[in-house]
Amino acid sequence: MKQTAILLLHCPDKQGIITEITKFITDNNGNIIYLDQYVDHVEEHFFMRVEWTLEKFLVPAEKLEEYIRTLYAQRYDMQFSLYFGNKKPRMALFVSKMNHCLYDLLARYQAGELNVDIPCIVSNHEDLRPVADQFGIPYYVWKIEKDWSNKREVEQAEMELLKEKQVTFIVLARYMQIISDEMIKAYPNKIINIHHSFLPAFIGAKPYHQAYQRGVKIIGATSHYVTADLDAGPIIEQDVVRITHKDTPETLVLKGKDLEKIVLSRAVQKHVERKILTYKNKTIIFS
Amino acid sequence: MKQTAILLLHCPDKQGIITEITKFITDNNGNIIYLDQYVDHVEEHFFMRVEWTLEKFLVPAEKLEEYIRTLYAQRYDMQFSLYFGNKKPRMALFVSKMNHCLYDLLARYQAGELNVDIPCIVSNHEDLRPVADQFGIPYYVWKIEKDWSNKREVEQAEMELLKEKQVTFIVLARYMQIISDEMIKAYPNKIINIHHSFLPAFIGAKPYHQAYQRGVKIIGATSHYVTADLDAGPIIEQDVVRITHKDTPETLVLKGKDLEKIVLSRAVQKHVERKILTYKNKTIIFS
Amino acid sequence: MKQTAILLLHCPDKQGIITEITKFITDNNGNIIYLDQYVDHVEEHFFMRVEWTLEKFLVPAEKLEEYIRTLYAQRYDMQFSLYFGNKKPRMALFVSKMNHCLYDLLARYQAGELNVDIPCIVSNHEDLRPVADQFGIPYYVWKIEKDWSNKREVEQAEMELLKEKQVTFIVLARYMQIISDEMIKAYPNKIINIHHSFLPAFIGAKPYHQAYQRGVKIIGATSHYVTADLDAGPIIEQDVVRITHKDTPETLVLKGKDLEKIVLSRAVQKHVERKILTYKNKTIIFS
Amino acid sequence: MKQTAILLLHCPDKQGIITEITKFITDNNGNIIYLDQYVDHVEEHFFMRVEWTLEKFLVPAEKLEEYIRTLYAQRYDMQFSLYFGNKKPRMALFVSKMNHCLYDLLARYQAGELNVDIPCIVSNHEDLRPVADQFGIPYYVWKIEKDWSNKREVEQAEMELLKEKQVTFIVLARYMQIISDEMIKAYPNKIINIHHSFLPAFIGAKPYHQAYQRGVKIIGATSHYVTADLDAGPIIEQDVVRITHKDTPETLVLKGKDLEKIVLSRAVQKHVERKILTYKNKTIIFS
Repeated sequence: MKQTAILLLHCPDKQGIITEITKFITDNNGNIIYLDQYVDHVEEHFFMRVEWTLEKFLVPAEKLEEYIRTLYAQRYDMQFSLYFGNKKPRMALFVSKMNHCLYDLLARYQAGELNVDIPCIVSNHEDLRPVADQFGIPYYVWKIEKDWSNKREVEQAEMELLKEKQVTFIVLARYMQIISDEMIKAYPNKIINIHHSFLPAFIGAKPYHQAYQRGVKIIGATSHYVTADLDAGPIIEQDVVRITHKDTPETLVLKGKDLEKIVLSRAVQKHVERKILTYKNKTIIFS
Repeated sequence: MKQTAILLLHCPDKQGIITEITKFITDNNGNIIYLDQYVDHVEEHFFMRVEWTLEKFLVPAEKLEEYIRTLYAQRYDMQFSLYFGNKKPRMALFVSKMNHCLYDLLARYQAGELNVDIPCIVSNHEDLRPVADQFGIPYYVWKIEKDWSNKREVEQAEMELLKEKQVTFIVLARYMQIISDEMIKAYPNKIINIHHSFLPAFIGAKPYHQAYQRGVKIIGATSHYVTADLDAGPIIEQDVVRITHKDTPETLVLKGKDLEKIVLSRAVQKHVERKILTYKNKTIIFS
Repeated sequence: MKQTAILLLHCPDKQGIITEITKFITDNNGNIIYLDQYVDHVEEHFFMRVEWTLEKFLVPAEKLEEYIRTLYAQRYDMQFSLYFGNKKPRMALFVSKMNHCLYDLLARYQAGELNVDIPCIVSNHEDLRPVADQFGIPYYVWKIEKDWSNKREVEQAEMELLKEKQVTFIVLARYMQIISDEMIKAYPNKIINIHHSFLPAFIGAKPYHQAYQRGVKIIGATSHYVTADLDAGPIIEQDVVRITHKDTPETLVLKGKDLEKIVLSRAVQKHVERKILTYKNKTIIFS
Repeated sequence: MKQTAILLLHCPDKQGIITEITKFITDNNGNIIYLDQYVDHVEEHFFMRVEWTLEKFLVPAEKLEEYIRTLYAQRYDMQFSLYFGNKKPRMALFVSKMNHCLYDLLARYQAGELNVDIPCIVSNHEDLRPVADQFGIPYYVWKIEKDWSNKREVEQAEMELLKEKQVTFIVLARYMQIISDEMIKAYPNKIINIHHSFLPAFIGAKPYHQAYQRGVKIIGATSHYVTADLDAGPIIEQDVVRITHKDTPETLVLKGKDLEKIVLSRAVQKHVERKILTYKNKTIIFS
């Protein structure tokens, strides 16, 4: 893996930004290996992802964030994130009882396709501990009472674990619990959920049953960042599959599972590659 | 075109129905050239489409409906429709200003792909008269006042025309007007609409703008039978296309138009082939 | 699980077959819970799948095959297969080094979605033994020499195992070896392979590299029954995914893996449900 | 429409190109409204599309090509094309007897969705003259003898017409004739064809019949630039549709027509927007 810097930024659109940023990189001996930008002409807002090699770069890695803030972020009213290609994101998986998304992500991880560390799997049930054991990943269970009487307490414990494990993002791999606002605020645009419908259709519980009731001819799955509004966060990825009148709620669940795992893993992959920018409840996804 | 009878039926599921119907046809020298059936095990309801040749059939065509009603419909509490393969459906097209669905349907008609007669095109605007003229189809315009003061009067005139022209079904090819309950009742499951979203997402006006606002990654189009509930009738066909953050409401409209015309024409084709049964606000679509 | 009989048959198209078969079932107190038929009007050939309950059926299960052969197969020049719903197919998995198809199938199996027994996993490499162990399935390795000097010997040993384990069908889950004609003959239309291209494009080795070279905009995967002709057997299922000029052979491999596992598992599911008929190197797939 | 310059370029990948080009534009008071670039790391080749406003640009439009050639193309061993946003491409349509692609393109043109001029439609048959007349576009017919005895003569006449009409690119909208190498050389990467298969599967004649014979479960259509090798030119766009065993060659033709017109129009749209670069028989398609 080459040592690279990845800069994701957005700011009000102005002339000259691309030129300045690319000049900064080139002048300091960085070789740009990826550049993509996008102007939202409705919002007049500018978005950019640029990645460059650090081998001969004249600005030291540890100073880079400061330089970008000082030289550009202030001047252009810019939001930015800086990542380093050789530093893996640390992903926590939250699961309940269903195994399909978990197996899918872990099989990719095991095959070396997902460039992350997975320091922990968290659940409210014991069911999937054997899967975690198969892959040698620590599995933590906190049961949540039906009346939510211990919900706050459990989340505190979970957040301590996440902190201790230096988790950088969370994937809800069919975790059937609602996340509190406090936890969402602690991980803004860093909690990825998979919802088993083509959002915004069929928000909430039992979307396959809703789809069956409505008699749709296509079902979908949606991966999104979790926000305080249920199933209303920025959408990362969606996909669909064709169904017929012969499908029952049960066969929809089966067909949907294949969608869910593929859609979730695509979203996770994009997040891991630092190719997602979020702005006004929408995602910009660089290719 | 062979002379055939097409029987579409549904009733509570009971043993022996298929056997009885097929025996009736075979015993009377009909050759079954199509049979598809489906049991909804949730509703315990039975659906069937059967088509057979009439050349040597012992029951005269004009007596067939009576025989089926007497021999089977009563006994099995059956709803049925009987069609004859050599009698074309007569389709009225309702349009406003956009030409894409109209051209698409008329080009298919002209190429001999759509086995219908088109006795009239109805509009609330003059805009598409040249298209109707190109294809030699009578074009009727009734302007509807913005305050709907003449809405009832216009619909009366339209319904007289439809009657006079012996129209058997209506296609709303991006007709931007709401159809009154009276007209819907006169053509139950015989008015096909194209809605420019993936229903039930984005019901109502400006679905592409709604999709843009929500930041979805896929847009859709839905063809359905018109019922008294806006955009809530039985869905016939849906399809989707992938979009990105680069799309604006304007490009969504363009991408959507391609969906709309394809989805509408598929639905019309299925209706024309008498392959659709409707039950409890859902469609059973035989293949 | 209800006790049912499943009859798959095909024969030259003649009048009255459906009537006779359904009458036979109804007369003997069977309740038809599934019937689908299809007439190939080009070949004038008839195909049918019918499933009925055996609870009160007057013909004993062990006599059923004989009765169908005597009463119908002779008369109609019919090929047929008879299965019983309560008797699970026994699936052997053949794998090499890649884990994605294996994990996908085993996770479905573990979740109770795949109605099979899996008595053994066979490989030419040790690599995936830990996966087999995770799921508690016996794993057998026979290394095949590069010069194929022991190929025949290995296949003999494998076939003995399959016999001993009463395997009814084989799934090549990215098994990177060619199967000999002898073994194919022993399992006609009972060996399912996944080829990582949209057949018939890119037959043979390294299809993703071929796709990259050609510059296609969509890649695919194809599941098919194995015949003596390489990658030319009856196609069961295909699917595709969109790619761009940005994709490299490596990213094609990653995108393709998701296709492969989904396409293979759909094919396996259809086979397990006894919904596939094969005729003249094509499949009829009942829905 | 804003006055803009569009620069498409490619060259061996070197550090600093983006910086230089964007600096050139910004320094001369151009506002970049679109920039996309791509590095092919296999070929180590760089591709870029940049568009900027010309209102206050200091280099006069008529000098721009010269400046780019002198300042950059030489130095970087660069191939480039320069277009102006307010100058419409001029498209010639070649057709035979089928109307679906023609109607589709003309309906878009009439609706203002296709930013081209269409100075002529060329055919080897009279059949589609009425369609051309409907849209008021001159229609030219040269019949080609079955023995091709007048092929060269006809192409000479056609090329004179194209020259006279200042045609910049040609669309073969199901034109059932082979184009000679001479004509291809005169319009390199400027002749767009639609092939009715998922290339490279089913090259040559009657691809739907080939697909039917092979028993595929998905059919496709491919739009590509025409080169001397039949059906082997750079692919611009592909799409597919699912089929079943119930489809006949005739229904494949019908389903395929919908694909053909959509795939062709997407390719034409991309070409018209100057978003396609061609390199080593592949296309880079900017989004």
